[in-house]
Amino acid sequence: MSAGRRFRFYWEDFPVGHRMAFGAYAVTREATLAFAREFDPQPFHVDEAAARDSLFGGLCASGWHTCAMAMRMMCDEYLLDSASLGSPGIDELRWLQPVFPGDTLSMQMEVLQARPMASRPAVGLVQTRWEMRNQHGQPVMTMQGWGMFRRRPAA
Amino acid sequence: MSAGRRFRFYWEDFPVGHRMAFGAYAVTREATLAFAREFDPQPFHVDEAAARDSLFGGLCASGWHTCAMAMRMMCDEYLLDSASLGSPGIDELRWLQPVFPGDTLSMQMEVLQARPMASRPAVGLVQTRWEMRNQHGQPVMTMQGWGMFRRRPAA
Repeated sequence: MSAGRRFRFYWEDFPVGHRMAFGAYAVTREATLAFAREFDPQPFHVDEAAARDSLFGGLCASGWHTCAMAMRMMCDEYLLDSASLGSPGIDELRWLQPVFPGDTLSMQMEVLQARPMASRPAVGLVQTRWEMRNQHGQPVMTMQGWGMFRRRPAA
Repeated sequence: MSAGRRFRFYWEDFPVGHRMAFGAYAVTREATLAFAREFDPQPFHVDEAAARDSLFGGLCASGWHTCAMAMRMMCDEYLLDSASLGSPGIDELRWLQPVFPGDTLSMQMEVLQARPMASRPAVGLVQTRWEMRNQHGQPVMTMQGWGMFRRRPAA
């Protein structure tokens, strides 16, 4: 791994209890349809009339699109200036409310656990809980999962 | 909800222990980069040189792109001809191995639980475990989660 670049955020910058709030992602009809047509063309994601007639009451974003939008907000807020090494997975993901075109989404996160990785001493694991809300303050998605970050190099 | 259309798959068609194997999704470099640039522009997803230097050893798909490709295979195999009503969430998601451009992905699923929904007698819940493998037979992702389906109408 390249040791050249210095980042703002290393494993040490995500202690247990650390909280951040960020993001203002505008959900467009075009992006909702484009994602759904490629990956999740169920009627309530691609067909206005069918969506009105569904449990959701209107055309809404694929849950995987919602995850992807959350990821973009995380990237812009901290991951792209971090020593992120990827993620082994997610422990729980809940789609609580539909996400509609026209919504503006934001994120809150809190660090639940942080520990060095037993097999790789230069790497640490961080378990985070994320909550995504819409412009009405309604939680639309929660996730709990893990990230791997390089530890801060000695000065 | 429209009762007009008849589907091949209703809640009753996913009994506990039911298994399906399906899909042959070709991962392209163009799609890998397009998804990552929009949603997850971490260096190992968008920059060949940085990716070679990362834990992954080469440019690889965003984990959320991997989920989206899994969803597309599910849609094509059964969801689009089912009385699917969406999903409340995922209980566990593990990204086990990187997914690389040039890979061909396939899915296996098994139904773990199936029960009518207490609050909506016309709807049933199905808990499924999915495993995605690459062309070498390596598991690259596992997921366990829930789907809601309308129950089969009386004949």
